[in-house]
Amino acid sequence: MTEQKPRDPDALHRHLHDIQDLLSRQHLVENLIHRQRMPHQKLVESITHKQNLARLRRKLDRLHPADIACILEALPLADRLFVWDRVRAEKDGDILLEVSDAVRATLIETMDSDEIKAAVESLDTDELADLAPDLPPDVMRDVIASLDQEEQAQVRAAMAYPEDTVGALMDFDMVTVREDVTLEVVLRYLRRFEALPDHTDALFVVDRDDRLRGVLTLEALLINDLEKKVSQVMKSKSVVTFAPDDDAGGAAKAFERYDLVSVPVVDATRRVLGRITIDDMVDQIREESEAEIFSQAGLREEEDIFAPVIRSVKNRWAWLAINLMTAFVASRVIDLFQGSIEQLVALAALMPIVAGIGGNAGNQTVTMIVRAIAMGQVEPTALWRLLRKELGVALINGVVWGGAIGAVAWWLYRNLELGLVMTAAMILNLLLAATAGVVIPLLRQRFGRDPALGGSVMITALTDSGGFFIFLGLATVFLL
Amino acid sequence: MTEQKPRDPDALHRHLHDIQDLLSRQHLVENLIHRQRMPHQKLVESITHKQNLARLRRKLDRLHPADIACILEALPLADRLFVWDRVRAEKDGDILLEVSDAVRATLIETMDSDEIKAAVESLDTDELADLAPDLPPDVMRDVIASLDQEEQAQVRAAMAYPEDTVGALMDFDMVTVREDVTLEVVLRYLRRFEALPDHTDALFVVDRDDRLRGVLTLEALLINDLEKKVSQVMKSKSVVTFAPDDDAGGAAKAFERYDLVSVPVVDATRRVLGRITIDDMVDQIREESEAEIFSQAGLREEEDIFAPVIRSVKNRWAWLAINLMTAFVASRVIDLFQGSIEQLVALAALMPIVAGIGGNAGNQTVTMIVRAIAMGQVEPTALWRLLRKELGVALINGVVWGGAIGAVAWWLYRNLELGLVMTAAMILNLLLAATAGVVIPLLRQRFGRDPALGGSVMITALTDSGGFFIFLGLATVFLL
Repeated sequence: MTEQKPRDPDALHRHLHDIQDLLSRQHLVENLIHRQRMPHQKLVESITHKQNLARLRRKLDRLHPADIACILEALPLADRLFVWDRVRAEKDGDILLEVSDAVRATLIETMDSDEIKAAVESLDTDELADLAPDLPPDVMRDVIASLDQEEQAQVRAAMAYPEDTVGALMDFDMVTVREDVTLEVVLRYLRRFEALPDHTDALFVVDRDDRLRGVLTLEALLINDLEKKVSQVMKSKSVVTFAPDDDAGGAAKAFERYDLVSVPVVDATRRVLGRITIDDMVDQIREESEAEIFSQAGLREEEDIFAPVIRSVKNRWAWLAINLMTAFVASRVIDLFQGSIEQLVALAALMPIVAGIGGNAGNQTVTMIVRAIAMGQVEPTALWRLLRKELGVALINGVVWGGAIGAVAWWLYRNLELGLVMTAAMILNLLLAATAGVVIPLLRQRFGRDPALGGSVMITALTDSGGFFIFLGLATVFLL
Repeated sequence: MTEQKPRDPDALHRHLHDIQDLLSRQHLVENLIHRQRMPHQKLVESITHKQNLARLRRKLDRLHPADIACILEALPLADRLFVWDRVRAEKDGDILLEVSDAVRATLIETMDSDEIKAAVESLDTDELADLAPDLPPDVMRDVIASLDQEEQAQVRAAMAYPEDTVGALMDFDMVTVREDVTLEVVLRYLRRFEALPDHTDALFVVDRDDRLRGVLTLEALLINDLEKKVSQVMKSKSVVTFAPDDDAGGAAKAFERYDLVSVPVVDATRRVLGRITIDDMVDQIREESEAEIFSQAGLREEEDIFAPVIRSVKNRWAWLAINLMTAFVASRVIDLFQGSIEQLVALAALMPIVAGIGGNAGNQTVTMIVRAIAMGQVEPTALWRLLRKELGVALINGVVWGGAIGAVAWWLYRNLELGLVMTAAMILNLLLAATAGVVIPLLRQRFGRDPALGGSVMITALTDSGGFFIFLGLATVFLL
């Protein structure tokens, strides 16, 4: 993807510090000059300024695009664009590929169409397809027009596949060989290449209709006698292949389970369309886990931490709205029992405990079940066994913690019945939480929905309203 | 790692179903026989029984160890051990490597020392070191004793490095060459190998003291003329290397940024100790994200979903205890305002809304900050800028949602002042949440702690107690 060689990983933080240092000096100069009311003209001419810029440029030239991307992510908008303008044009494309969508938008906004064209020229067709959605349509049209027939077809193909499918992630350059030639011939053929496609750990063996016959690993190519035919040493049985519309997440799991590096993508007739490589799968795995962590916290997407306030508000409002609804329902439940609370105000102080612990226990259960489903470890048939187990856990927790807090309530308010009601309410709410924690994700799975989605919101809603209702209800029945 | 070829990824679920099907037939037979009071002896002799077992064995023989591992994870204890007994012994080692710690324990419990020895015989020294902590000490001693000097040294070395360091993950077999030989010679040398180490994308070029001079990528080996010397085509500048005590997580990030496949591990004198390969890094990335998701939900470690109830209770109690404490504190805060609640019981119904929304907003903030820190995007110096931004977001959310819910409260209770207090309390609690969400992780980072740890617990504790105090406090001052 990039010509430049990676450098020692720990260096990244040093680089960031150096650049922030240069930038702050830059700001210093500007401030000084500003105070002295020196026209900007002069600033640009000032020596320190020139020195800083020169240093910054040299630094950036030495950096790997992936590292520059990280650094851009870490800089507030003004500094980010200042640095971005000083990056060598030929790196722009790779950097745009590496940065997060949020940051990419801020960078592209500042580029005119010619700069964008220059930036994406160097990219492979599959990389171009990745960027396409974020580029101005007219620019994209010109870029595509500038490609040759085959490349145009590739870009269109890649863009045609929905996100999160193998097709959208596959790249098109690969080395194919025929099975009837000797390894000797293959080696001579390879020596004609300037370079091999990234992550080439195997050559694809195809017939004259480009149908996959097997794969020739570089290992097999290197350890076998040169006289042997490809067909003798190629792997043709149980070769992992993907279809372009396979789910990217599933593909990533296969790479993980089978320790793969590159896998051919074939159509229904086993014609080879392209290649999936481990680097894309690693990004896939990272993105999936990020997405999960963000959605758990109710963030729609990864945020540019220096994004303007308003964008962050947009990113977060939906979840807050939902929680406002559920909190409102809970509040209505409490309102039902105004009378009881008036008579025994201790209830108001104790009820959040019942609701809170229920929510936590429920989230433990749902998290565990969702993980197990994601790992393909849970069949809907397991419902009863899992339910029995979780109810057991809930019962023990209820007796232990409910008993403890019940005793405390008894001691605090010198009221045994109150303590008993507290304990009973905790047990019941924990049982409710466990049931919901098992049933909600398994039902969603059975109906073909994403088991993870909104699970914890629903649980919390249930355990809040449920907890208040159970506790205040029991209190009303037995205490008043 | 394994001789067997991987198969089509989607197959995994089919396999699981088939095996569960076989097992259920098995149970059926057993039940029938049981009802007819037929002695177990007869069961074992019964034909259906034998057929099922034969089918099960055939199925397992065809499966990749990683797939068998997934299937074992998915089976309840009894079935799991039933299947485990029927797996071919030579696969045992690889399967033990693949399963989660929880499941591994259940499998090893059932094996006698000879079975364990047979299982781990086939493993590489680094894999052996991975399993060592879970094996009975006496068995481990015998196994190590059975190794040759060099292997013993390797196992000891690998076990000496703390978990989550590069040293603990590195493997020891690799191909090294000298720089003064021609590619021709290298090719001839490689043809003497039975197989190359997994994920060999480059040979390590070393001097006669085993010090790393550079790496010869298979690509360079394949595309260059045979007359060329290794020194002419090897990569010697800015080669990524790790030290054995580097953090495994950092190494994984480097693999991700630079799209690496295998990296040499060198000591202070650049002597090559071993190799880190992408497959271990993929597992590392997966484990990190799992651990984060589990700790967010307050689960100590990944759970075997079919583990006995008591083990799950142990895994979850700590978090529940902490939350009980914080909930108790919040409850005490409410108790302070008994008088106010008695006078205006609507407060009891409204207070959970203030606390709840604060908690959600705070968790959004802390999640975002923690991610940014983990990506190396936040310097403690950014504190003020981030704080200003988050306070802005909180202010807008407070005015919008606080205003909305305040209006609702006004309408519900026909009490304008109550509505205004509600709005004010929401705004203040959201500001509190934002501050805590930024300050807590950044402080933990500055003091060299893990910024993620317990962040959301602390936030929730703050926003609950704080929310109750703010709301009830304002109400007491302005409404009563």
